[in-house]
Amino acid sequence: MIPTITAFERSPDGGRGLARDMQVRWALEEAGQPYDVRLVSFAAMKQPAHLARNPFGSIPTYEEGDLALFESGAIVLHIAVRYAGLLPDDANARARAVAWMFAAYSTVEPPILERATAVILERDAPWHDERLPLVDDRIRKRLGELSRHLGDSDWLDGDFSAGDLVMVGVLRRLQRSGLLNEFPNLAAYVARGEARPAFKRAFDAQLAVALAASNN
Amino acid sequence: MIPTITAFERSPDGGRGLARDMQVRWALEEAGQPYDVRLVSFAAMKQPAHLARNPFGSIPTYEEGDLALFESGAIVLHIAVRYAGLLPDDANARARAVAWMFAAYSTVEPPILERATAVILERDAPWHDERLPLVDDRIRKRLGELSRHLGDSDWLDGDFSAGDLVMVGVLRRLQRSGLLNEFPNLAAYVARGEARPAFKRAFDAQLAVALAASNN
Repeated sequence: MIPTITAFERSPDGGRGLARDMQVRWALEEAGQPYDVRLVSFAAMKQPAHLARNPFGSIPTYEEGDLALFESGAIVLHIAVRYAGLLPDDANARARAVAWMFAAYSTVEPPILERATAVILERDAPWHDERLPLVDDRIRKRLGELSRHLGDSDWLDGDFSAGDLVMVGVLRRLQRSGLLNEFPNLAAYVARGEARPAFKRAFDAQLAVALAASNN
Repeated sequence: MIPTITAFERSPDGGRGLARDMQVRWALEEAGQPYDVRLVSFAAMKQPAHLARNPFGSIPTYEEGDLALFESGAIVLHIAVRYAGLLPDDANARARAVAWMFAAYSTVEPPILERATAVILERDAPWHDERLPLVDDRIRKRLGELSRHLGDSDWLDGDFSAGDLVMVGVLRRLQRSGLLNEFPNLAAYVARGEARPAFKRAFDAQLAVALAASNN
């Protein structure tokens, strides 16, 4: 059975692969699993049909038979448990890979989201220029901890896993901030993720949607 | 084998059960699983021995034989998979319960964390009084979506699950903000979680640590 995911009809990132369907596409590509995509408009995301699949009215969602899922982390984990290639076989190593997924979303990403919110919603606020460096320092604290853990390893814990997939996705949101370049091993880590053939296929697929939308 | 978790020697919340060991204690109590606690000071959390267990230098951690885990979400999920009582038997319902765990951490909590950060780190900033209502509105948006989904159900998706446990833990961080009372069904949902015997045992255990610390 081929799962169906949802993605933005017109992604606000213009095809930079920062919307959360990217991680789901990437996970499916790593698993070698074909998938269908249903594009949704911002208006459609707030309608009952979509809200029944995602109560927060956003993308991605994942439908497979009578299963409907939301939250990119949960979808990636579902794919990782169901198909080979994204989690180690050893039970302890699997639990640690899942820990890195949660670490990406609940420890590393919050200050990164705070920065995105500031840049989008508070850009014209009188405090923006003075406050942004404070937020950047909170991001640096997390990046420093992550950088120290990674050291000169290729991936966070042994082989590439769903934990790396999600962490690379979170770190990619810093592309335009310049912060990642302050931690060369993290910049190299993200580049290593982006060089994976499965990443490239996923990236090209979401880029094609953005290019089609911009031609409409 | 009895697992060992870590918790703050002196929790900044003074025993209100808002530190992240609370969810782990609660999950273990729901599972009926005894556990040991090792208290750590803020200085010890930044030492190599603790950083080897949690690269971000915080609590909780979870040790069980040769498994060492960090991230409360990952620990709760590990407990939920290993013991009965926190996840439904049906595979699809299990995946949805996990989706609610990710939703708690990566969709509902970020603006709540942003508020906590503002109150703690930006209280004296000249913009604080003007900015806090903007953050509160971001929280209200998420609470409104969650409230609409919950409706008059007791729990987020069928019976109580690890998804509810984590979501109640996230919402409890709003206690002093007054925001939860704007959504009576969410306030009742949190109260329903807090009324569970397993919650009470976990709460009392962390409170005992705080009271002992305040007597030293």
